[in-house]
Amino acid sequence: MHYIAEILCVGTEILLGNIVNTNAKDLSEKLSVLGIDTYYHTVVGDNPERLKGAVAVAKSRANIIITTGGLGPTFDDLTKQTLAEAFGKKLVFLEDEAEKLRSYFKGNISSKMTQNNYRQAEFPEGATIFPNSNGTAPGCAFEADGVHVIMLPGPPWECNLMFDQCVVPYLKQFSDDEIVSHNIHIFGMGESAVEDKLNSQMTSMTNPTLAPYAKLAEVMLRVTAKAKTIEAAEEMMKPVIKMVYDTLGSVVYGVDVGTLENTVKQLLTEKGLTFASAESCTGGMVASRITDLPGASQCFKGGVVAYTNDAKSELLGVPAELIAEKGAVSREVAKALAEQVRLKLHADLGVGITGIAGPDSDESGTAVGTVFVAISDGKRTYCRDLQLGKRRDRIRTSAAHHAFDMLRRYLTDLEIEKI
Amino acid sequence: MHYIAEILCVGTEILLGNIVNTNAKDLSEKLSVLGIDTYYHTVVGDNPERLKGAVAVAKSRANIIITTGGLGPTFDDLTKQTLAEAFGKKLVFLEDEAEKLRSYFKGNISSKMTQNNYRQAEFPEGATIFPNSNGTAPGCAFEADGVHVIMLPGPPWECNLMFDQCVVPYLKQFSDDEIVSHNIHIFGMGESAVEDKLNSQMTSMTNPTLAPYAKLAEVMLRVTAKAKTIEAAEEMMKPVIKMVYDTLGSVVYGVDVGTLENTVKQLLTEKGLTFASAESCTGGMVASRITDLPGASQCFKGGVVAYTNDAKSELLGVPAELIAEKGAVSREVAKALAEQVRLKLHADLGVGITGIAGPDSDESGTAVGTVFVAISDGKRTYCRDLQLGKRRDRIRTSAAHHAFDMLRRYLTDLEIEKI
Repeated sequence: MHYIAEILCVGTEILLGNIVNTNAKDLSEKLSVLGIDTYYHTVVGDNPERLKGAVAVAKSRANIIITTGGLGPTFDDLTKQTLAEAFGKKLVFLEDEAEKLRSYFKGNISSKMTQNNYRQAEFPEGATIFPNSNGTAPGCAFEADGVHVIMLPGPPWECNLMFDQCVVPYLKQFSDDEIVSHNIHIFGMGESAVEDKLNSQMTSMTNPTLAPYAKLAEVMLRVTAKAKTIEAAEEMMKPVIKMVYDTLGSVVYGVDVGTLENTVKQLLTEKGLTFASAESCTGGMVASRITDLPGASQCFKGGVVAYTNDAKSELLGVPAELIAEKGAVSREVAKALAEQVRLKLHADLGVGITGIAGPDSDESGTAVGTVFVAISDGKRTYCRDLQLGKRRDRIRTSAAHHAFDMLRRYLTDLEIEKI
Repeated sequence: MHYIAEILCVGTEILLGNIVNTNAKDLSEKLSVLGIDTYYHTVVGDNPERLKGAVAVAKSRANIIITTGGLGPTFDDLTKQTLAEAFGKKLVFLEDEAEKLRSYFKGNISSKMTQNNYRQAEFPEGATIFPNSNGTAPGCAFEADGVHVIMLPGPPWECNLMFDQCVVPYLKQFSDDEIVSHNIHIFGMGESAVEDKLNSQMTSMTNPTLAPYAKLAEVMLRVTAKAKTIEAAEEMMKPVIKMVYDTLGSVVYGVDVGTLENTVKQLLTEKGLTFASAESCTGGMVASRITDLPGASQCFKGGVVAYTNDAKSELLGVPAELIAEKGAVSREVAKALAEQVRLKLHADLGVGITGIAGPDSDESGTAVGTVFVAISDGKRTYCRDLQLGKRRDRIRTSAAHHAFDMLRRYLTDLEIEKI
C-alpha cells in the first residue's frame, strides 16, 4: 500500500503572514523518515466552509490527512467538527477527557476553566485520542473511507511532541520502509552546469533519487534512498555518491557537511592549524561566518575589517605606497592583507579580500564585482582574480565563499587559484 | 472586485521538510499590505501531474494564483510549462530574454551557461516579464479565464525582491483603493510587553489596522490604512503612529527605517561622524551588518575581530594584564576594546563587544549569554551588562543589536546604558 500524506494546516494567522508554517516542515521531515511520501501541504483559515472544501480536496488525493491547529476551545476552532462531518462521523463527548481537563485547570492558577473548554472533550466517534503533555488540546486519529485522519494542535511545540509520542507509533504500523538521504555540497559550478553533467542519471534514477538544490552562490545535490532497513538504504546510495564525486571532481566539498566554513573548520581542527582574516569588501563576513560555529576559537585567531585604506595601513601595516601605486582593489593589496594579518595574529594561514561590492565603483573606476581573494601560508601567497556580478549581497557572499574554498583546497592539496 | 489569492509553492524540497516555506509567509504578509486576502497556501512537488491538479484546484477557488519555484533551468523546473498548459497558452521563446541570460553568464566566472539555460527564455504567450535582478530565472504574469497568474522564482531573496519591484505595481492596477502601511521598529521591549501596552487599540482598530510582527531580537508594528488616496491614508495613520510613540517611548527606533544599523548609518552620515568596532563574541557581525549597507564607508572606519586574547592585545593594545586580571569577558575589557579601536582607526566613536556566545562557558566559568557592550566617544565610555539567554545565534544577534542601539541612543541624546 502506497501512502500519500497531505498536511492541512488550519489558521488564519498563517494566511496573514504573521507566522511561518514550521509545522508543515517539521511534519514533512518526520513523515519522510517514516518512509511516507508527503505530496501536498495546504493552509486554510479558521473558516468552516473553506476548511470543508480543503478537506474534500485532500480526501480526493491523499490517504493520510494530518491537520494542525483549530483544536482549541474557542468558537473559531472548528477542525474536529469539520473533519468529523466530512467523513460522516458524529462528535461524542468523552467524560474521562473532560475529567483530565478539570484536573489540568485545578493545577493551573493562571487560567480558569470555562464552559467552552468542554468542547475539547468532544471527539469523532471511535477516534484514537492523543494526550497533549504540553497543553489542553488533545489530538486524535481515526480511519474512514480508506483515509487516515490525524489531528494535531497548532502550537509547534505541542504539535511536534505529540507527533513523536503518539503519531509515530500510530503510523509505524502502516509503513515498513526507511528513507535516508545525504546532501552533497558543491561550490564553483552553477546549478545548470551540474545538471548538465548529471542530467541522464537524475532523470533515470527512481530509487535512490538525485535532486539539485540551488543555494546562494553554491549548489547542493540530495541523494535519497528508500529501503527496508537504514543499512540497505545506505548501501544503495554509496555508488551514487561515488558517481557524483567522479563526475564533478574537486568542486564537491563534502557530504552532509552543512557549509564551506564548517568544512574548513573541521579540516583546520584536524590538522591543528589556525587562520586569520583581513577583509575589505566582505566587511567581516568571513569572520562572522566562521564564528557562527561553536568552537571556532580553536581554528580562528581573529580578523580585521580593513574597510578604509587607513585601516589597511594602521592595523596591518600594508604600505600606503603600495595601496597608492596598485590601488586598494588589486592583487597586490589582497596578497599583502593575507600576509600581514597572518603575521599580526600569529596564524598559520592568512586570508585577504579586497574588491568592489557596489553599487558604485571606486575612484579608480574599477568595475563593480571585481574582487581579489588571497590566502597565504608564509611560504607562498595564492590569489584569485574574480568578477562576481553586480549585486552587492551576491558579490559579498560569493567572495566569502571563495575565501573558504581556497582554504579548503589548500588544506586538501588541491589546486588553489583555479577551480 | 474581491480578489482571493492562493499561493502555490512548487518544490519537492519543501515536501521533504528540507526547507521551511518562508515564501508563503512573506508573500501573504505583502499581499495583506496590498489589501488582498490570501485564502489558501498550497505546496506541491516538482511533478507535472500533481502540479496540474493543484493548479486546477487553485483555479476553482482563487482569482489570483501566485506560484513560487520551478522556474530554474533544470529538468524538474516545470512551473511555466504546466501553468501555460492549464490556461491553454503556448510557451514562446523570447530572444531578448535569451540575450539577457548570455550577458549574465558573460559577467560570471563561477557558473557557465548551458543549453538548458535557454528554457528560462521561454514564457507563456503574452505574459508580462518580471526581470530577476538576483538570479537568472525571470518571473512573469498573465491573465486568463478571469484569473491572474503570477510566477516567481523559488529562492526567497529572489522571490521577495521580484514581488516588491514587479508584482506590487502589477497588482496595484487592479485595486482602486490605495493601501498604505508603515513599519514601526522597536528594540528593547518584547512582543508580549508591546502587545500588553497596545492590546486594546490593536483589537479595536479596523482601519487603520495595527499588527505586531516578532523578529529575531526585535519587534515590528505595522500600521495599515485603506483610503481613496495615498494622502488620505497617510492622514489616517499619523495619529496612530503618534500614539505608538507616546505609549512606547524611546524603544521605538524609527518608522520604515528597515534596521537598527540603517538608522545608525543615517544618523552618523547626517552628523558627519564615524565609528569603528572591536568584536569578540559577535565575531564581525557588527562590521558585517553595517557594511551590508551601500556607502557604509562614509560612516564606518573598520573593525577588529578580537576573537582571541592575542588579537585583543596585538591589534588593539588592550593590556594583557587587564585581560588577565578582569577576564576577557568583563566590563573593563569591553570598554578598553571600544576605546582602543576608536583610537587605532581614528574614528569618532568606538564599539567594543565581549561575551560568551556558548554553547560552552569559558575557563573562568562565566555564564553563557553574558555579554558586555561598550561605546566610547573619547570623553566617556558607556557599557551595558547583558544576559542574553542560551542560544548562540540569539546571543550574537542581540549583542550586535545592542551595539547599534547604544550608538543610536548616543546620536539622539537618549540614555545610553539603560533601555
